[in-house]
Amino acid sequence: MTCGVIGRFDYTSAFQSAVDQVRDEGRYRVFADLKRVRGQFPKAVRRREDGSEQDCVIWCSNDYLGMGQHPEVLEAMSAELDAVGAGAGGTRNISGTTRSAVDLEAELASWHQKEAALLFTSGYVANEATLTTLQSILPGLIIFSDSLNHASMIAGIRNGGCERHVFLHNDLAHLETLLAAAPADAPKLVAFESVYSMDGDIADLAGTIALARKYGALTYLDEVHAVGLYGATGAGVAERDGVLDGIDIVECTLGKAIGVMGGYIAADAVIVDAVRSWASGFIFTTSLPPALTAGALASVRHLKTHPELRDAHQERAETLKRRFAEAGIPVMPSESHIVPVFVGNPVHAKMISDMLLEDHGIYVQPINYPTVPKGTERLRFTPSPNHDDGMMDRLVTAMDALWTHCNVARMPVAA
Amino acid sequence: MTCGVIGRFDYTSAFQSAVDQVRDEGRYRVFADLKRVRGQFPKAVRRREDGSEQDCVIWCSNDYLGMGQHPEVLEAMSAELDAVGAGAGGTRNISGTTRSAVDLEAELASWHQKEAALLFTSGYVANEATLTTLQSILPGLIIFSDSLNHASMIAGIRNGGCERHVFLHNDLAHLETLLAAAPADAPKLVAFESVYSMDGDIADLAGTIALARKYGALTYLDEVHAVGLYGATGAGVAERDGVLDGIDIVECTLGKAIGVMGGYIAADAVIVDAVRSWASGFIFTTSLPPALTAGALASVRHLKTHPELRDAHQERAETLKRRFAEAGIPVMPSESHIVPVFVGNPVHAKMISDMLLEDHGIYVQPINYPTVPKGTERLRFTPSPNHDDGMMDRLVTAMDALWTHCNVARMPVAA
Ligand SMILES: Cc1ncc(COP(=O)(O)O)c(C=O)c1O
Ligand SMILES: Cc1ncc(COP(=O)(O)O)c(C=O)c1O
Repeated sequence: MTCGVIGRFDYTSAFQSAVDQVRDEGRYRVFADLKRVRGQFPKAVRRREDGSEQDCVIWCSNDYLGMGQHPEVLEAMSAELDAVGAGAGGTRNISGTTRSAVDLEAELASWHQKEAALLFTSGYVANEATLTTLQSILPGLIIFSDSLNHASMIAGIRNGGCERHVFLHNDLAHLETLLAAAPADAPKLVAFESVYSMDGDIADLAGTIALARKYGALTYLDEVHAVGLYGATGAGVAERDGVLDGIDIVECTLGKAIGVMGGYIAADAVIVDAVRSWASGFIFTTSLPPALTAGALASVRHLKTHPELRDAHQERAETLKRRFAEAGIPVMPSESHIVPVFVGNPVHAKMISDMLLEDHGIYVQPINYPTVPKGTERLRFTPSPNHDDGMMDRLVTAMDALWTHCNVARMPVAA
Repeated sequence: MTCGVIGRFDYTSAFQSAVDQVRDEGRYRVFADLKRVRGQFPKAVRRREDGSEQDCVIWCSNDYLGMGQHPEVLEAMSAELDAVGAGAGGTRNISGTTRSAVDLEAELASWHQKEAALLFTSGYVANEATLTTLQSILPGLIIFSDSLNHASMIAGIRNGGCERHVFLHNDLAHLETLLAAAPADAPKLVAFESVYSMDGDIADLAGTIALARKYGALTYLDEVHAVGLYGATGAGVAERDGVLDGIDIVECTLGKAIGVMGGYIAADAVIVDAVRSWASGFIFTTSLPPALTAGALASVRHLKTHPELRDAHQERAETLKRRFAEAGIPVMPSESHIVPVFVGNPVHAKMISDMLLEDHGIYVQPINYPTVPKGTERLRFTPSPNHDDGMMDRLVTAMDALWTHCNVARMPVAA
């Protein structure tokens, strides 16, 4: 069955052109069908389209610390599954508030040194729902948004329809110009990220907070790629930089370093209560399964007290950056655990990625538009504490061979 | 810490007024903190604000068939957790496609007799992302939306910014007037639900499809409250009514009758491929944990071959409606498994709900604005096959006593 032409409109052709456009731009996505094996992360088994299987090493997971395989997390999930069952069975208001969700919100609030926290089904929904709702709660709100903010922040900001100004990425001078030009008595909000996940750079939190305070704006910080990874207890870059207090609303995910799924904000109790009472994306959806909130709770408790995981993580990233640079592979400047390698063309990026997978069992997804701007296509490596030296040797050797084989631009060998 | 006044704007007061407004309207929500007990559904343990506990029976869960407690579902989840771990670790494109997700999509497509299916993190996101994205894929799209459509459909329709027309709830004459007035050659889409979850009425699918075909529109049907519950294999009201083919895009949740969490659409392969390639809410978010997709897969397979669950479910709902009516409790007309009881005032609804819980251990959440229009506040009961006659006796007796005690309007005792 295909819907085809209905009445005077050819629907099938319209959908087909939408797909063709993506194909023509070389960014049609084929998802790698993976089966990870518990306890063997980052190893996985890939299923090809013909059904055959191949062992591979995942180099692009956002389960940055392997917490998605941690025994404490899995045991907490199993125990909750056995004790209470599968789904939450309702929205938070209508029978869907389970105990581990309440306990997790308390734990998250205290982690970020805030009065309260609120769970969402994902980090995407946390950003979208909160940023849209703040515009209803604060009529006349003007939002100042970093030009590289994540799609979920952009969606939330746009959907509320408020006045918005985009400042150049991490450019505080530009932000100040925009803030200074806005009416002094209007409510304002500066929305930004700490670690930008595709480039690996880190915002100047203290500088941004100072500007926000000077011009009477709230600060909204996305720590999705930093939570669990930075700061003495892993509460993020705001903790590392000693500026937890200067962030009015922090937004994070439970799906990356924490290793499970879900998202949240943490803030003053009254802010959380207002968002809780007003946000459509929070109110009208089935809440997270108890096993997920229990698993996230175990993960957060573990992360708080295990800084050595964060040290190992940073060491692995530093080592990989150094080894790529030594081999003349064009690793992009990154201040974080993200190791992006520049390719600059969607077709080349896909070709290199395909060859790494087929010939070397190395899985790293090409990153293309709309995730990054056209012309900046790249490979993005995320080494975890579980990626050992042997895996790194094989990766660097394979990349080196491919760079020669494909004649991709190298960078001058680092000193 | 509270943010308070920053610059010239008093943020804390603004957030406080947003909360006060909700309180003043009598619709401030206090979530019941529940711990279900595996194998004892619909029984649960409630934790009061003072930490004390109380046994209760849940009468308002959307885990309509108790599948969230079904051994086959829990075993599939446990097995997947043990085999592959907790979170998916990435977006679908970037290392987050796990095998059980791929298998689940195939199973869902075949259930709805469509070529393909696409998973989202929730039914809310499925609606919002798909309806927004269709507007980018089909420029000039005009959407015709039932006036009682769910918040997630409204969000998706509005966020795309296209021309839209709201037709009176389930009013095909009004829909036809609107369709006839639109340009014949414009792409069009009729968006509606099968079971409306707060009133329990069911749309005329065949009639709506006939109009859509006549005026050249696609049909988009939300079967969130019907999937698993209607039709020979549980594929929904479209299956029951023999019109699966007339629905171009069906949208469902994995979080209600299926008992887990997540959402999906099923449609022609080219439609699914276009949405997959274009939808921000699909692309930029961590995918569902493997344990959830494995659990949902087990649940769907079970539901397909167990019509007796659906029969028992309908019998329980019919019985409760009849018993309420016999006791003069104002049960609202409902053609489905939903049993709404009219109260008409948010303060009364909350009071009755509080007394049912405190005095009788019966948990049914009051339903208030914005979930239903102001003045139509109600209690909404969702009996499952697990609600036995004894539980029903206690419920009807308690409601009868409260209706007398609170002097709430009764309806004439049914014949
Ligand atoms: C910066 C940023 N914010 C938010 C999100 C969304 O989080 P989640 O995956 O939990 O939806 C992502 C990625 O997925 C992200 O990169
Ligand atoms: C009609 C309808 N559509 C969609 C949804 C959203 O589904 P989910 O709970 O999976 O987000 C709901 C309820 O939550 C609903 O009632």
